[in-house]
Amino acid sequence: MNLPLKDIIVLEFSQYLAGPCAGLKLADLGARVIKIEHPQKGEAGRKLAIKNMWVEKDSLLFHTINRNKESFAVDLNMEEDISWLKKLIAKAQVITHNFRPGVMERKGLGYEMVKKINPAIVYTQISGYGEEGPWKKKPGQDLLLQSLSGLAYTTGSYNDPPTPLGLGIGDYLCGNQAVQFIIAALIKARRTGEGSFLQLSLLESLIDFQFEFLTTFFQSGRIPQRAAYNNANPLLSAPYGIYKTSDGFLAIAMMPLEKLNQLLQCMGLSSFKEEDAFSKRDTIKITIARCIETQSNQYWLRKAEELDLWIMPVFNWKEMKSAAGYKSLDMEQEIALENGRRFITTRCPIRINKKILKSDKAAPAIGADNKKIMESLG
Amino acid sequence: MNLPLKDIIVLEFSQYLAGPCAGLKLADLGARVIKIEHPQKGEAGRKLAIKNMWVEKDSLLFHTINRNKESFAVDLNMEEDISWLKKLIAKAQVITHNFRPGVMERKGLGYEMVKKINPAIVYTQISGYGEEGPWKKKPGQDLLLQSLSGLAYTTGSYNDPPTPLGLGIGDYLCGNQAVQFIIAALIKARRTGEGSFLQLSLLESLIDFQFEFLTTFFQSGRIPQRAAYNNANPLLSAPYGIYKTSDGFLAIAMMPLEKLNQLLQCMGLSSFKEEDAFSKRDTIKITIARCIETQSNQYWLRKAEELDLWIMPVFNWKEMKSAAGYKSLDMEQEIALENGRRFITTRCPIRINKKILKSDKAAPAIGADNKKIMESLG
Repeated sequence: MNLPLKDIIVLEFSQYLAGPCAGLKLADLGARVIKIEHPQKGEAGRKLAIKNMWVEKDSLLFHTINRNKESFAVDLNMEEDISWLKKLIAKAQVITHNFRPGVMERKGLGYEMVKKINPAIVYTQISGYGEEGPWKKKPGQDLLLQSLSGLAYTTGSYNDPPTPLGLGIGDYLCGNQAVQFIIAALIKARRTGEGSFLQLSLLESLIDFQFEFLTTFFQSGRIPQRAAYNNANPLLSAPYGIYKTSDGFLAIAMMPLEKLNQLLQCMGLSSFKEEDAFSKRDTIKITIARCIETQSNQYWLRKAEELDLWIMPVFNWKEMKSAAGYKSLDMEQEIALENGRRFITTRCPIRINKKILKSDKAAPAIGADNKKIMESLG
Repeated sequence: MNLPLKDIIVLEFSQYLAGPCAGLKLADLGARVIKIEHPQKGEAGRKLAIKNMWVEKDSLLFHTINRNKESFAVDLNMEEDISWLKKLIAKAQVITHNFRPGVMERKGLGYEMVKKINPAIVYTQISGYGEEGPWKKKPGQDLLLQSLSGLAYTTGSYNDPPTPLGLGIGDYLCGNQAVQFIIAALIKARRTGEGSFLQLSLLESLIDFQFEFLTTFFQSGRIPQRAAYNNANPLLSAPYGIYKTSDGFLAIAMMPLEKLNQLLQCMGLSSFKEEDAFSKRDTIKITIARCIETQSNQYWLRKAEELDLWIMPVFNWKEMKSAAGYKSLDMEQEIALENGRRFITTRCPIRINKKILKSDKAAPAIGADNKKIMESLG
């Protein structure tokens, strides 16, 4: 396939998650993403293993996020290496890094210096909390940022402690938004010949993520309260939530109580009026829960389908993976390792001209592409 | 500012959240985003109010997501209107829609037809579950998709029911990824003159969001279990989580137990070895919790700062809004309404050449730009 970002070269100085997430999407869209790594230590993410899962010497997580990339190993303290790097920068379109302020400048690789080598470069800095203000030196770690941004008070129920999302969301959002802004800046570079200096932070991305809720809060001045019973969105009324059945869980989206009661046929529920669906949401939700728990998932789902109601089962990953609807998406791909081993990961979530994008290229070893890159630079 | 997507015209047939979220980012990056709406009913999202908050006749949510756009009101059942639309399509670069399969085709606006008018168009279809497979007609609602995708089993603790994130995440992620792919396809259109047909779904975006965890699951075959006590990431060991103090909550990120105990000075904690941090995580976390709850947020934070530990307070939105670190980001902007009223929302989360992007242009009334657009089309 003639991929959209063909001929774009991205130099990824970024470490760990956010920047490398951006690089992965850019690579899947056709860019040539070259990790710039220390010749011995490599990118710090190589050693970030979860549950002790490794692919050869590098962590499985590193392999997941850094597949489909190249590696150019240089020591930023060696003048000769820096001069190779500058030759490469002259040919590149994009740089990403997440070093603390001042680090790239001290190596002669700050934006002002790089711009002299390559005026059209899209130079992207990712930080935790922005580069100014009292938090600028705080650790840019996902749980800390979820907690600081108010997000932990949207999830869980009223009497629960603040509840973080169980996945790294700040890194992922910020990495994905970096992709948006980088490609937009590439459009501008093609139109005007001018590069751009882009700054993103995990905190700004997490605030943007909450933009609808924050706007409601800015106007009302009131913090939305999580429902006391099976909260699923602090601003929505009953029945919105996840309910236990006799053998599993069902998600019930927004719908008039009367419509839901066509399914439930619950005497208790019929005594509530629609206009009470927010003010009495806990009592109503408990009433619904008592009724739902008496029958199985299949029982309710079959009836809900007949009535065309917004109800779906709650799956864990095993259940999702075995569902026909998941299989039809063809979300998985095999990555080929040098030694013939393979591992399975997910693909880029887009169809272009009805084709999905897959690539079986594994993450590079440190410096795997030095020879090729140096030859191309002459 | 010379914004990156200047001169790009986006025709937004999309309704509700995902597509309009994409349009908002494109608009903030400089594109001219024109909502294509029914002359009487308008976009369905205009009537989607949360907590009964309205800005004139339209919901506050609609205003939040559709600021900085124009509106072209056309009746897709009127031949004359369709012919105006086709003139506009000839000048546009991007179309987004989230109609069910077949709707745009029946109006003569499917990709194959539009391509004849404008071969370079980037035509983007957003669905809930993909356009094939057994779920293709299921309601593409956020809670249902969170539940189906396994996400609800990552959050909350082991004995909790599956816990959804309290915000619409599928719509937001999919809208943001649409922006990535649309701009990438614009790059290709400039390089080759060829347009693209893009298909995204909320489900594929939610699976991509879980890519690290799913890859771990694909290899191990085991579903990660949420911690029984204050889970914050099912794959991480103690102390990772949110802990109650005497007057608030603290988030504690990953760190060696011994390092944490420099802060806590807790006898009980010193009896655990680092290699038990995952296998005994619940016992360890409860031990930590008993110690933390004896002192205040300020007490621990002051000490944690001296020791340079990865610990931050947990804020609700009111606390975040009043923090100096939040204020220094300058995340808020005022939107000017026609009648002189104003409301406050968040800005686009990027700095370009050290400047933030703000726009005070309100969401359009239905058909607000018909006259101007029709004149420009002659």
